[in-house]
Amino acid sequence: MKEKNKKRLSGCPLAFGLDVFGDRWSLLVVREIMIKGKQTYSEFLEAEEGFATNILIDRLKHLEAEDIVTKSRDPKNRRRFLYALTNKGLRLAPIILEIVRWGSLYDERPEAMQGSLALVEKTSKEISGELAGSDIKRGEY
Amino acid sequence: MKEKNKKRLSGCPLAFGLDVFGDRWSLLVVREIMIKGKQTYSEFLEAEEGFATNILIDRLKHLEAEDIVTKSRDPKNRRRFLYALTNKGLRLAPIILEIVRWGSLYDERPEAMQGSLALVEKTSKEISGELAGSDIKRGEY
Repeated sequence: MKEKNKKRLSGCPLAFGLDVFGDRWSLLVVREIMIKGKQTYSEFLEAEEGFATNILIDRLKHLEAEDIVTKSRDPKNRRRFLYALTNKGLRLAPIILEIVRWGSLYDERPEAMQGSLALVEKTSKEISGELAGSDIKRGEY
Repeated sequence: MKEKNKKRLSGCPLAFGLDVFGDRWSLLVVREIMIKGKQTYSEFLEAEEGFATNILIDRLKHLEAEDIVTKSRDPKNRRRFLYALTNKGLRLAPIILEIVRWGSLYDERPEAMQGSLALVEKTSKEISGELAGSDIKRGEY
């Protein structure tokens, strides 16, 4: 886990991406918001994989520092925080979609949720449509 | 790092994919073979990010156990091993491409190798062409 502006390992954009979100837990938090529509810490704790609280807190801070998620007070309950994806976070959709495609192809367990692929494809398409109207420029959040 | 057939955390294909290759070093090894055309242990050690030898040995073993890379004796030098990607490993190309696209968009460092994107796009297209002729079925290596 690296904080923002900390020296990156190389000039390769693959290494850059892996450095920012290339940790299984970070991308699972993004999935919870993007695909499952979750917004709060207590909703994240219900995830099937079972986040440990210290890992969840650490990854949320990291994703916020990397401008992938924003954290704001819930106007309906000032003691609660709501998490949402920035455009930078929403643009992770094609990566998640390709990983899910690959996982669906190679995961042979009978309990593997093959239905996930259709849901992720639908969500990815919707996000792509939403982002189409916004300017894409380097460094945008 | 999990060994093959070890219990996976959930039925989600995203979690499955992250479990198999979702470790920055694993995907950087795949990049060295796929994009940079490297084949040998000593070539991997020259990577810009500087693999520690214990990490490199561990990740090569893991990728072999997951049927993503194969290891065979070099016919020209029986004391040396050559590493190559299986079809399962080659099919990681779209994931690497999407990560590089995202990284190229958000990596603001002047030294970031923006030229990488064109190279990865070209390689990904070539692999896609090579794989088009082969049957795609679940669980294929």
